[in-house]
Amino acid sequence: MRPSGRAADQMRAITIETNFTKHAEGSVLIGFGDTKVLVTASVEERVPPFMRGKGEGWVTAEYSMLPRATHTRGSREAAKGKQSGRTQEIQRLIGRSLRAVTDLKKLGERQITLDCDVIQADGGTRTASISGAWVALRLAVQKLMDAGAIAEDPLTRKVAAISCGIVKGTPVLDLDYIEDSSADADANFVLIEGGHIAEVQATAEGATYDEEALLRLLRLARLGCADIFAAQEKAVAR
Amino acid sequence: MRPSGRAADQMRAITIETNFTKHAEGSVLIGFGDTKVLVTASVEERVPPFMRGKGEGWVTAEYSMLPRATHTRGSREAAKGKQSGRTQEIQRLIGRSLRAVTDLKKLGERQITLDCDVIQADGGTRTASISGAWVALRLAVQKLMDAGAIAEDPLTRKVAAISCGIVKGTPVLDLDYIEDSSADADANFVLIEGGHIAEVQATAEGATYDEEALLRLLRLARLGCADIFAAQEKAVAR
Amino acid sequence: MRPSGRAADQMRAITIETNFTKHAEGSVLIGFGDTKVLVTASVEERVPPFMRGKGEGWVTAEYSMLPRATHTRGSREAAKGKQSGRTQEIQRLIGRSLRAVTDLKKLGERQITLDCDVIQADGGTRTASISGAWVALRLAVQKLMDAGAIAEDPLTRKVAAISCGIVKGTPVLDLDYIEDSSADADANFVLIEGGHIAEVQATAEGATYDEEALLRLLRLARLGCADIFAAQEKAVAR
Amino acid sequence: MRPSGRAADQMRAITIETNFTKHAEGSVLIGFGDTKVLVTASVEERVPPFMRGKGEGWVTAEYSMLPRATHTRGSREAAKGKQSGRTQEIQRLIGRSLRAVTDLKKLGERQITLDCDVIQADGGTRTASISGAWVALRLAVQKLMDAGAIAEDPLTRKVAAISCGIVKGTPVLDLDYIEDSSADADANFVLIEGGHIAEVQATAEGATYDEEALLRLLRLARLGCADIFAAQEKAVAR
Amino acid sequence: MRPSGRAADQMRAITIETNFTKHAEGSVLIGFGDTKVLVTASVEERVPPFMRGKGEGWVTAEYSMLPRATHTRGSREAAKGKQSGRTQEIQRLIGRSLRAVTDLKKLGERQITLDCDVIQADGGTRTASISGAWVALRLAVQKLMDAGAIAEDPLTRKVAAISCGIVKGTPVLDLDYIEDSSADADANFVLIEGGHIAEVQATAEGATYDEEALLRLLRLARLGCADIFAAQEKAVAR
Amino acid sequence: MRPSGRAADQMRAITIETNFTKHAEGSVLIGFGDTKVLVTASVEERVPPFMRGKGEGWVTAEYSMLPRATHTRGSREAAKGKQSGRTQEIQRLIGRSLRAVTDLKKLGERQITLDCDVIQADGGTRTASISGAWVALRLAVQKLMDAGAIAEDPLTRKVAAISCGIVKGTPVLDLDYIEDSSADADANFVLIEGGHIAEVQATAEGATYDEEALLRLLRLARLGCADIFAAQEKAVAR
Repeated sequence: MRPSGRAADQMRAITIETNFTKHAEGSVLIGFGDTKVLVTASVEERVPPFMRGKGEGWVTAEYSMLPRATHTRGSREAAKGKQSGRTQEIQRLIGRSLRAVTDLKKLGERQITLDCDVIQADGGTRTASISGAWVALRLAVQKLMDAGAIAEDPLTRKVAAISCGIVKGTPVLDLDYIEDSSADADANFVLIEGGHIAEVQATAEGATYDEEALLRLLRLARLGCADIFAAQEKAVAR
Repeated sequence: MRPSGRAADQMRAITIETNFTKHAEGSVLIGFGDTKVLVTASVEERVPPFMRGKGEGWVTAEYSMLPRATHTRGSREAAKGKQSGRTQEIQRLIGRSLRAVTDLKKLGERQITLDCDVIQADGGTRTASISGAWVALRLAVQKLMDAGAIAEDPLTRKVAAISCGIVKGTPVLDLDYIEDSSADADANFVLIEGGHIAEVQATAEGATYDEEALLRLLRLARLGCADIFAAQEKAVAR
Repeated sequence: MRPSGRAADQMRAITIETNFTKHAEGSVLIGFGDTKVLVTASVEERVPPFMRGKGEGWVTAEYSMLPRATHTRGSREAAKGKQSGRTQEIQRLIGRSLRAVTDLKKLGERQITLDCDVIQADGGTRTASISGAWVALRLAVQKLMDAGAIAEDPLTRKVAAISCGIVKGTPVLDLDYIEDSSADADANFVLIEGGHIAEVQATAEGATYDEEALLRLLRLARLGCADIFAAQEKAVAR
Repeated sequence: MRPSGRAADQMRAITIETNFTKHAEGSVLIGFGDTKVLVTASVEERVPPFMRGKGEGWVTAEYSMLPRATHTRGSREAAKGKQSGRTQEIQRLIGRSLRAVTDLKKLGERQITLDCDVIQADGGTRTASISGAWVALRLAVQKLMDAGAIAEDPLTRKVAAISCGIVKGTPVLDLDYIEDSSADADANFVLIEGGHIAEVQATAEGATYDEEALLRLLRLARLGCADIFAAQEKAVAR
Repeated sequence: MRPSGRAADQMRAITIETNFTKHAEGSVLIGFGDTKVLVTASVEERVPPFMRGKGEGWVTAEYSMLPRATHTRGSREAAKGKQSGRTQEIQRLIGRSLRAVTDLKKLGERQITLDCDVIQADGGTRTASISGAWVALRLAVQKLMDAGAIAEDPLTRKVAAISCGIVKGTPVLDLDYIEDSSADADANFVLIEGGHIAEVQATAEGATYDEEALLRLLRLARLGCADIFAAQEKAVAR
Repeated sequence: MRPSGRAADQMRAITIETNFTKHAEGSVLIGFGDTKVLVTASVEERVPPFMRGKGEGWVTAEYSMLPRATHTRGSREAAKGKQSGRTQEIQRLIGRSLRAVTDLKKLGERQITLDCDVIQADGGTRTASISGAWVALRLAVQKLMDAGAIAEDPLTRKVAAISCGIVKGTPVLDLDYIEDSSADADANFVLIEGGHIAEVQATAEGATYDEEALLRLLRLARLGCADIFAAQEKAVAR
């Protein structure tokens, strides 16, 4: 029995509230249970130096936890004067995941930044960020297309992410904080609608794991992402 | 006529949603119109080095804007590696304002940190932060009293803050972003319930101002803070 | 009786020594009693990025305390690798105060930086800085006008600043360090010659204060600034 | 045909030179073809703050590229004043991988730091670092055991790492720089001798990949790690 | 003929004004011609970590140029967030030079920090700093001895420093800024009263130099330091 | 008798291995006994801002110790976020020394950076760096000349450096770590082939020294540099 009473292959409630803030071109508050992340998509008509003059766009991400998103207050990275390795690792993952489904040529020479700010944390903040970022990006791209700035849709596939792990010997889907703290292995899967994989990061925390376990976790992730794809679809439908 | 259609002495709608997040000892989402600030109060059983061994507590604040709280995206301070002068000025003001109504001796040797994160900005973010921080602090103090950690209430008076300004020659209450951008003078008042003043910061932006104008702005501030005190009272009633 | 034996409305001796250093376009050592600040005005024929192409100039300020300007040695900000919130707050105030009396259009597309370095501190360093900065700026502007670089005088009004406070219940003018440390309220006024106000920053330290007290402090400030305006006039006369 | 003329499942030459420097408790220069990494293991009789008083040890890693390890000179992180996200991500991975095979209780309350400095880069620097770090750690642990500081061996299993990728549609083992730059997918596997997995990081760069591809890459990784385990064994035999 | 009209072996006027500021245990404004440096000596009853528990004291120095000490304004190191290599090199030299004449055992477990702030620069700022620092240190030590905190004098010898250089083929003493900018070689000598040498730093700027030139510069330095020793003696006499 | 058994005027073995790494235009591993420094020369077809448009080139250097180059592990400067004063002082010295023998006009508008990374330290790392940097620079310049990018040789003289010191009263050549730690005086000489001097840095550590001692150290340095010039010649011969 999981601490939350969920079945091994059961996701927490997925909630997606679009247009949570008014200035951003795309904005969403996504919840995986008690994990709540505010994601905004900001369009800028310029690209970073390394992309200039290629006629292509860029999609990037920044990630942060509010200091008291967690059980005990963490120190504010802006006050410390640097982002932690964990933060940088996560924001690089988010950016990479979204670029995996974006046709940068069709986007044109502009940048979309996905700001993922964790309002409340209960495990799975990076996967909720990726899943919510797709919705915010979709909304921003739609706005560009509606305005005639983009001719062809650069975002034809969905991407979602979910964490799975082995807790007390059992593979389970969508770890909350309690499970995450005691997991033997912790894996984050970034999946593309249709079956392909964008990224696997599977880490042994206590015990190492074998190939069979990896595959069982991947199968759980497919179940979870199917739910997320459905929630994303519903959120962007109009 | 103001851009928002409000009368010169009319506040925007004040909204206060308590317990917006679950981990913090006190937590509130405060809105002054479209300005939305999430404030959490975090209790820690230690004080900063300069307060150690005095048998007194400390109240401090940190302030941040989410990058896309504003019309165009601002860069993230954690990524730039330092807090701007504006940020530091504001968080020092918030901390000072709350300490003005807290009896640090009665608080005991512990620290309460008020994190004010602006989710959406439309003028008045520092005054909304102060007004919301009082509610979050009140909730956290109540929790400490309920738990028996504090014997006597260290927080017997309310504090609230509001911005006023002279826009096109007219003193107006509670400036939104459009008014703030074109104001001749911009004043932030931090007032104590009962009539006293904790802080006045009145700055000429374009034209300088005279004593009479300062007094008219202070009177508007009294009107606005009366509304805020009422909203605070309602929010913490139980 | 004040610790210094002064009357409640009595300033400390104001001393202004112009051309204290030889390289700067304007340079002054200003003293308010034992508080001594070296202010230099440096002209550069370029403006910061946000002002480019507007045909206007810019006036800005930097502030620093020498490590042993104070009773006990403070750490050097250059060695710590960042400026404190207090330093940034003060230098923003100085810049704003001087811009309040400068016609940036008439200045032309150039920047004047006012460096305020506190040689010795005994209370009132920010107000001495502002008052001295006006003299240094005046000297630099005069040099530009004498050289024909500026056609019309961009600096037709004087600005001065003074601190007042409520010490043991009595409003007093021009606080020294001992009074500053024990004041119930501490207010800095930036006044324009002729009666207008550029900035009021009035902060309750221990006890909060009321409207009458604010007005009494403002009246004291007017007395003090009258003396400073006279000293400034004498310093720049030729 | 691969650019290097290797078969799809063929590793580059693995070279391990132990005791490359004299001060470190363990030291090794490991080469995967033209990729050369100097790894030193340093023992310190203290643990980081978060581990104090638990009676356990800690294993951590730092990673750096010499500025001209690469085709064109990269800027020195010490001169820029911060480590890149990539550097932090890699050093976190190295530390985690080594901890996966270390019994921290048996290590006792001391820390071993693995410094991985890339002398020359040609793809696979993080996997060479992990594989070499095991040897350096083994040497340092042996020295502690020989000196009687450790009673029971805390390091009974080997860990190795290798990169695999899909290049022009073909899964290949041990990517060099040319292949890495053009790979559709790039996966790093950290494997434990005996068959278990410590970490999988499989990233789609251009095209996404499917489950079958993931498994084929894992099988290639098993082949490569078998060779590395043999080379490690030979290097530490005495 | 030198630009200043001085003879090759002629120093600029040496001025030493003691007790220039009131808080420091020792304080001096030293001038070598137009070069003016404010040096303060601050006594603290603690030593840096690497000296703790040895029963010895420490003498250290910090150095800074005010931004407009020079012909054109330099940026403020506190604002840039780091000290330049030049600044660090100079402050290390000053500290070393003063420690060369201080008996750290007799000083007792306390630290004296010499803050050298250049008010106006015209060449030779580091040598004026060292020469002035000795006076400030002497005054601070005297105060400690007068108070009975130190039993035996830890500072029985004087130290002074002077720059010499080869300008247009001629060795000259005490370079000013114009000479410094065009010198072929530039040497700083730190000499002990009585004839010994504490430090020589002789650098070829344009042309390299030979042994004879080095000796001629050293002889000039002896002449210059004799003058400085006399000025130091006069400054501390009582 | 010296700890190493060497005669007072005896160098340690000088070893120079060219082309130690493959990407750099020039690369060398130089050893002075157990001190080993990897030096690479990197050519870039641009110059730093202060040199632009002069039609001249620039030669600069960076220096770093690997964390475990020393007896006990030092912290990594990239992780601490800044370079120490010692590091900056040394890299400035290396750059200056190499520029003393380079005709920047003949080099053309390009920059050569000499990266000196200390693999193993046993005293004399800065002098080994300078001596090795000449070889790496020579190799890079030769490559530019062979490719026809440079018409006339900008590097016609050799430069080498060696440390000497007074240990227990005796002047000795080429101090190793043990001698360096206990030396009364420590001098680094940068000499030009043919007899001229580029730089002398002679520092009293414990006892101060006299003119005769300085000359005896210089004579030892001439002996040592003669050996280094011979080793450099052999290394670049082809």
